[in-house]
Amino acid sequence: MSTTAVKAFGAAAADADLKELNIDRRAVNAADIEIEILYCGVCHSDLHTARNDWGGTLYPSVPGHEIVGRVTKIGSDVTQFKVGDLAGVGCLVGSCTTCESCKNDLEQYCANGWVGTYNGPDKYLGGYTFGGYSEKIVVEEHFVLKVPTNLNLAAVAPLLCAGITTWSPLRHWKVGKGSKVAVVGLGGLGHMAIKLAKGLGAEVTLFSRSANKEQDALDLGADAVVISTDDAHMATVSGKFDLIIDTVPYVHDVNPYVATLNTNGTLVLVGNLGPLDPFLNTVPMILGRKSIAGSLIGGIAETQEMLDFCGEHNIVSEIEIIKMQDINAAYERMLKSDVRYRFVIDMSSLKA
Amino acid sequence: MSTTAVKAFGAAAADADLKELNIDRRAVNAADIEIEILYCGVCHSDLHTARNDWGGTLYPSVPGHEIVGRVTKIGSDVTQFKVGDLAGVGCLVGSCTTCESCKNDLEQYCANGWVGTYNGPDKYLGGYTFGGYSEKIVVEEHFVLKVPTNLNLAAVAPLLCAGITTWSPLRHWKVGKGSKVAVVGLGGLGHMAIKLAKGLGAEVTLFSRSANKEQDALDLGADAVVISTDDAHMATVSGKFDLIIDTVPYVHDVNPYVATLNTNGTLVLVGNLGPLDPFLNTVPMILGRKSIAGSLIGGIAETQEMLDFCGEHNIVSEIEIIKMQDINAAYERMLKSDVRYRFVIDMSSLKA
Repeated sequence: MSTTAVKAFGAAAADADLKELNIDRRAVNAADIEIEILYCGVCHSDLHTARNDWGGTLYPSVPGHEIVGRVTKIGSDVTQFKVGDLAGVGCLVGSCTTCESCKNDLEQYCANGWVGTYNGPDKYLGGYTFGGYSEKIVVEEHFVLKVPTNLNLAAVAPLLCAGITTWSPLRHWKVGKGSKVAVVGLGGLGHMAIKLAKGLGAEVTLFSRSANKEQDALDLGADAVVISTDDAHMATVSGKFDLIIDTVPYVHDVNPYVATLNTNGTLVLVGNLGPLDPFLNTVPMILGRKSIAGSLIGGIAETQEMLDFCGEHNIVSEIEIIKMQDINAAYERMLKSDVRYRFVIDMSSLKA
Repeated sequence: MSTTAVKAFGAAAADADLKELNIDRRAVNAADIEIEILYCGVCHSDLHTARNDWGGTLYPSVPGHEIVGRVTKIGSDVTQFKVGDLAGVGCLVGSCTTCESCKNDLEQYCANGWVGTYNGPDKYLGGYTFGGYSEKIVVEEHFVLKVPTNLNLAAVAPLLCAGITTWSPLRHWKVGKGSKVAVVGLGGLGHMAIKLAKGLGAEVTLFSRSANKEQDALDLGADAVVISTDDAHMATVSGKFDLIIDTVPYVHDVNPYVATLNTNGTLVLVGNLGPLDPFLNTVPMILGRKSIAGSLIGGIAETQEMLDFCGEHNIVSEIEIIKMQDINAAYERMLKSDVRYRFVIDMSSLKA
């Protein structure tokens, strides 16, 4: 299969800074779309993959799965896009398409393994996929999203991961007008959870460990902020919430949040991968039919639904634009939570 | 308020055997029904309450919340029962009736505290409630169930707790024809879960720690038995189940069962009160949108629905009938799981 070399930014090893390199992109097949990447959001997964924090990273590693750009070529079978259209690519660029999950538009739970936008198996070229820290990407039409034309394009990019990761549980657990939703953690995911839940008509509370995020949360649309380290404050929302979206990406005690769920309420983990330590106490779960669940990004149809919703409701991410060459410094700032709330790379910097 | 002394069986202290004693039952008020108790099932909660295993037991303690009998008196406002009717009483004899849960027929999740059939606050006589190990009981009509007339009455008694505790999650999580359900543990609750899930049209698998329960489970209607201590056997049902009802009443590792849930599947704990030890691993929950939930008995309307369903489908509990005087020996056998699958007290023995 013919390929084209394109400029990208990636890590040669777990302990190496990201720097410029060349990668191959496949020629456009009948079902493919080639996209010139204009902006790429910077997700915590990018950093964890580049540094092999989860194991399994293949090098060189080119992260990036919050991609927006413009269609530069289409294959002969492409029907929904034309050259010049805006287009988005999120965390997924492939799935088996035949399992029960894929048939139900839940490609993210593909029984045969979905293909990540980076570090996933590349069935076309062999090897593995390279992400959005690059000039161009070639993706099957099914995995390409339509991007609303009325929004700040750079601020749309984080919707492709941070947006859909919080949208999917909001929709699956049927949040709507009058729902009482709480969000744990105010980062890239948390700030989108507030905006999207608010957009759906919910009453939204942020749980935060410190009071200094209160004004920010209110500015983003939250109705209230509860300081999770203040037991008396926590008691004021005992039994209140229908859904809690817990975006905290490290091990933490969820028991205090379970206490704030209403009967039939659900706490959904989207960031905390690992053991629920300290032990989850089942007593309040049984006494109130409460659930703890997990949720992973979202399917393609649901991602499109979210983008359309954001277009209608003028919802975008809060971002700080950086150059591609600033990525290593940005990773260091992310580790200190020093970003409000998402870095987005202006990919024109890669051409400079 | 006038009262009548009736014979009962109860514990005078946590370390005392149960023996005969007298308790007071209130006179029948306008909304009340008086029931002569014919049979009373023996639940693990009876034992734990009598022995103060959970703390908070008031003495003398008269357990029993799987009650069937015959109506002997009705108050002037009673409309659904007449003297001579069969009647049942389960775990609940009161709730606030005004909170959101009560208004939604979820009295078991009453925000203001439901009244247990025993050891609950008695708003009529002060003090606390006495359960079904007694000749008679007086209960508000709202909390009295109609009992199908076509079933073995003694074997109906355990439906009032073991039955509804497994029925409620089966219904809440919408089990029906084609659902794939697994049951963890084959005791009083587990054997009812198999029968009820099968009655609802599900494909039912029992998880058991030992192979010696296999024939029993198949006889009860299970389609398959998987030995939970056999990793290779467990791997054959990886990702299979829509709902798992975990009836095991002590701390145990649920992670191996989570692995057998399908995408969107839920594991419901109905017996394991306490810490989820060892730690619950959130990774498979996030990667498959799986949930861990709790569920407590069931509401009154749902209990009636279950009894009606059992009448239509000829479903009863498997029981061993004992005399009231055998209760202490029965408790010892229950602690050794030496009962298939529920003891039921023939209350005529109390009169002898």
